[in-house]
Formats: sequence, C-alpha cells, structure tokens
Amino acid sequence: MSKQKNNNSIAELGEFGLIDFLVKDFKTVQRSTIKAVGDDAAVIDGGSDYVLVTTDMLVEGIHFDLIYTPMKHLGYKSVVVNLSDIYAMNGNPQQITVSLAVSAKFGIKALEELYEGIRLACEAYNVDLVGGDTTTSLTGLCLSITALGRVSKDKICNRSGAKLNDLICVSGNLGASYLGLQLLEREKQIFLSDNTIQPEISRHPYCIQRFLKPEARRDIVESLANASVLPTAMIDISDGLSSDILHICKQSQVSCVIYEDKLPVDAEAFALAQEFGIDVSIAALNGGEDYELLFTVDQKHYEQVLGMAGVSVIGYISEGKQGGMLKARNGVEVPLEAQGWNHMRDS
Amino acid sequence: MSKQKNNNSIAELGEFGLIDFLVKDFKTVQRSTIKAVGDDAAVIDGGSDYVLVTTDMLVEGIHFDLIYTPMKHLGYKSVVVNLSDIYAMNGNPQQITVSLAVSAKFGIKALEELYEGIRLACEAYNVDLVGGDTTTSLTGLCLSITALGRVSKDKICNRSGAKLNDLICVSGNLGASYLGLQLLEREKQIFLSDNTIQPEISRHPYCIQRFLKPEARRDIVESLANASVLPTAMIDISDGLSSDILHICKQSQVSCVIYEDKLPVDAEAFALAQEFGIDVSIAALNGGEDYELLFTVDQKHYEQVLGMAGVSVIGYISEGKQGGMLKARNGVEVPLEAQGWNHMRDS
Repeated sequence: MSKQKNNNSIAELGEFGLIDFLVKDFKTVQRSTIKAVGDDAAVIDGGSDYVLVTTDMLVEGIHFDLIYTPMKHLGYKSVVVNLSDIYAMNGNPQQITVSLAVSAKFGIKALEELYEGIRLACEAYNVDLVGGDTTTSLTGLCLSITALGRVSKDKICNRSGAKLNDLICVSGNLGASYLGLQLLEREKQIFLSDNTIQPEISRHPYCIQRFLKPEARRDIVESLANASVLPTAMIDISDGLSSDILHICKQSQVSCVIYEDKLPVDAEAFALAQEFGIDVSIAALNGGEDYELLFTVDQKHYEQVLGMAGVSVIGYISEGKQGGMLKARNGVEVPLEAQGWNHMRDS
Repeated sequence: MSKQKNNNSIAELGEFGLIDFLVKDFKTVQRSTIKAVGDDAAVIDGGSDYVLVTTDMLVEGIHFDLIYTPMKHLGYKSVVVNLSDIYAMNGNPQQITVSLAVSAKFGIKALEELYEGIRLACEAYNVDLVGGDTTTSLTGLCLSITALGRVSKDKICNRSGAKLNDLICVSGNLGASYLGLQLLEREKQIFLSDNTIQPEISRHPYCIQRFLKPEARRDIVESLANASVLPTAMIDISDGLSSDILHICKQSQVSCVIYEDKLPVDAEAFALAQEFGIDVSIAALNGGEDYELLFTVDQKHYEQVLGMAGVSVIGYISEGKQGGMLKARNGVEVPLEAQGWNHMRDS
C-alpha cells in the first residue's frame, strides 16, 4: 500500500471509494462468478439462468430513527429495498435471509412487529424467507438482509450497457420520500421540544408513505417484459437520480442529458417542497430513497415507453465519458453531480 | 397471538426458540425453495445441483473483543465460520458477500486489515467476494457475511437423516477454542488491572489459534468424498458438541450415546484445562466455536471412518426421540444437555 493511500480517510473516500479501495486486491476464481462487486446485485451462473445476490445493512440511528419508524414498516422497507436491487437487474426475487442484532431494549413484541412487516413484504412480492441469524447487540438494532433472485441470461440488465442516443426513463415520481423524511424530522424536533404537541403529518400521507413504506417496482419490470422492451441499462434509485444516472454513465462510458422540466414530481411533494422552501427539482435529483427504476432504452422503443403507465422519459444518453448535464427550466446547462447541483446553479 | 406468547421474553425463548417463534407464520411459495430455516444452510434449487445459502452476523462486544482480536484475524474467522456451514451440508462454498457497519473510531487502516483477513480466507478456500454493503454505525463494528455454495443433489447432508445405530463421528479435536478464549479473557483482565504486565499467551499457541483463527474442514468433506462415504447427517460444531448433536437428534427423531473417553482433546487443551481447573470434557462438550464437522455414518463404513485421518468415532445413534446420553469415564450415564451437563454430574 502506498503512503498516499495511507493518508486517505474514510470520509474522503466516500462509500463507493471505500469499497473500491478495500476490494482492490480481491480476485475471483470461481467459474460460476459472472459479476462481482459493482452493480445492483452480484451475478452467479445458475445453469439455465443467472442467480442474483444483493445485500443491505440497516443500522439504527443511521438508516432509520425508531422515534418515527414503526417496527412493522421497518421490516417491510428493509425487504423492499433489497428486492428493488433484484428488479433493477431485470430479475425476479425469490428468497431472502434476514439477520439482526438487537439490544436488550427491544422486547419480543417489537421483534414480532418487525417480522410481521418482513412477512407482509414476503407475501406481497412472493419471496421466501429461507434463513438468517438472530443475535444480541450492546446498543441498538442492526438489520442485514440478503435477497436472491433469478433472471434469464438474455434478459439481464446491467449498469454498463447504455448506448449513445438511448432514452433515459424513470418510473413513478421522485423526491417525495426525501420530503417525507424532512417532514418527519421537523415534527420530531417539535415533539422533542414540547411533547404535548402532536405531530402534524396527516396532510402529507403520500410523502410519509414513500419514505416509511416504499414499494419495489415489480410492475415496471413486468410492463417492460410484456412490451418486449429490454432496457440497455438499469439501476434503482436509492442514492438519488443524479448519483444513480452517473453510475450508469460511468459504467457505460457515456454521458447524459437530463431535462429538469421532465422530472416527474407528485403534486403533494411539490406542495410540501414549497412549504419547506426547498427547490422540488433538487429533492427529485438528490433526495434519494425513491426506489424507482432508472433505465435506458434504444430510441426505437420511444413510443412503447411513452405509452407505458408510470414511466417518464427524462433525457438521453450523450457523447462523452462519465459526466452528465442537466438542462434547467431557465435554459441553463449545469453539470450533474452525485451530491447536489444547487451550488452550481446559484453561481 | 395468544397472551401466553405475549409473556415470553427473549431470554426465556433462547436464540433457537426466538427464531422459531418469529418465523412461525412464514410460508414458502417459490418452487426453487427446497429447504428454508432450520439447517446449517438454506437449500435452493440450482437446476443440476443445489445452491446453499448461509449467513452469520458478528457484533463487537458480543462475538468478538477487539482488545485481543486483531482485525485481520476477525476478517479471516468471519469468513471461515460461514464456509464451515456450507461444508456441513457437504457443499462447496463459492461466493460470499460482506456487509459491515463501522463507527468513527475505526480508521481506514483497521478496515484494510479486516479486508486483508477476508481476502486471505477467500484465497485459502477459493471463494469469491461478490458483493456487500459498507456503512457507518453509531457505536462499534457489526459484520454480516453471507456464503453461497453448491452441492450435488444426491450428496447433500442435512441434520435430519441420522438413523438408528449410525456411528457418530467428529473431526479434529474439541474444547481448545473455548480454552483459548478463557486464556485471552484472563490475560485481558490482568492487563486491564495492570497494563505494565504483558499478556502470557505464548505457551498455548494452539488454543489461541483455534479461537482467533479457526479453519473450516474442507479436508474432511474431501476425505469423505474420496472414500465414497456419504454421511447420513452432518452439522458443524459452533455451539458445542452437546448442543449440536442434539440438533441432529431432534431433527432426525432419534437419540444418541456419546462416550466421554472417546472425545478427542488436544494435549495443549488438556494441560490448559488443568491450569484453569476446568474439566476438559466439559470444554469439549459445551465449549463451542470448534468449527469441526460432526456427522453420522452407516455402520458399514466403520472401517473407512476409523482409518480416516482426523476423524474420531465418539458414539452411536440410539432409539428414542430428541434426547442424548453421555457415558462418562466413571461409568455413570448422564443426559446430554444443550448447555452444560456438569451440574447433573455433580448431583
């Protein structure tokens, strides 16, 4: 290891840089390993098809706040975010394992509610719980879920297949989950300062639900299959549209143009953004936790995706390598950044 | 849920009771799910063979103490304990995912050492790291590893296949890991009371190694295959021989007889047990973390297993359901218990 690398801090590297750094000396030797680290899921040869494997770790105080997160919702969401990664490979999730570490503050009733949420998600998506590990922790709750799925070898969608002039499409709408979180955080602070004040969250049920109980877009994967449209690249939006389209650009060695006025935003999210004084496009671009599918398709499919319920065409793949551009409503072009383009806009 | 169940505490249920309770309402719906919760690994149909999936979560302060556990050893051991579960199904591990949550107290150097240990284990066992998740935690380190393996459909070993009169066999020796842990704990306490005293662990390298850097018994799986001996049941010893043979008995609906004088114990472990005033048989029966393979074979294989390096025949499967008996050196018969038979012996 060079001295240069010794000086890197975890914060400087960031999550993706850290993973790249830690796994740089790993080699794969098994013939069954088709794709290791670097996509929504690992790809393993399953004979007639591929086996997909993805895993997420959720830590109390980092990924969820039990002050406003019911255990049942936590269980449901923890499963859904993993299934979303399988759908993002154009796959069909089939099994999960659930590991958790819990401190003494959690009673059996709380764990039962957590598993009730996990069970409801399994039922909703026809997924089987096949294993896991249950242990104690000194503080808090840590959940680790692994999902397994299958995909036909000729139907898999990686992040690396986007081609020049492909259309960029996104399912559903963006930013509502982030705004729901902002609302929950605001009401939490009010409640903590005066616990006689009841949280006022009933006016924004959609944004709250998008954050607390997201769904994975199985329906979009099915719509694409029914329309015989095979995306050239696909990813699910967990870190935010900007960050995730840049993953596709980087791995496909292309650039992109996104139109601000094409970003799909729900009316309730728009109103809530106004209430907070937040630019709703910033929430849509960088909010994250949308769990929508972001994919690219060949232009020949333009009419098919245009007619597809719940799908918006928001831009196209352009020449260049690894960058991206936002065409703002006011006509200004600003580079897309993984974290926030707002300071660019202000300048 | 009945009121009776509402009153259960996590401590009363224990780990296995808790898992049974939490998953009681889960059903499996995928045809590819061959076996869900309840063995060393889940079994998924992989077309021409089975895919095995197992996962373990390791929490700082519960499963490891960083005062005496080097990060590199922790990484190595975390992988090995999962591979051991795959071998216990008579399988061949091929891939792992590694998720970790780390607090700010860990620098990049510590994480690099952790991954160096993970990499060394991957290399030693020809296993590929294919994915994972890296995140922060508020306190301490939490590691969750999932291992995937393969096994021929006609070669899989479950816990449920032990038959009357089968021989009970164990690989290697037992109790050394537990004694190594006792030594590390003693030296830690001495060091904490007076940090000018250096730990005295050099006289017991084998026991220390058995605890800090265990190996999984791939060699035994290979020896069995080379001798064309297919165990009727198999499990790896993580919780202790008593606890783990009772898992086989329960799932096979049989009982067993174990001979105390047949328990394989290393000379260094024997000496260390004497130093601690611990009955070495108790360490062998209940110590745990041996990661040896415990298996049953038909009596027709007696000569083959007797001639197999690193395998001891320690008893046989008897009539009855779910119980077990230890024939002590003094001729007394005592029931095997999942946690400690010593108080029975004293009575």
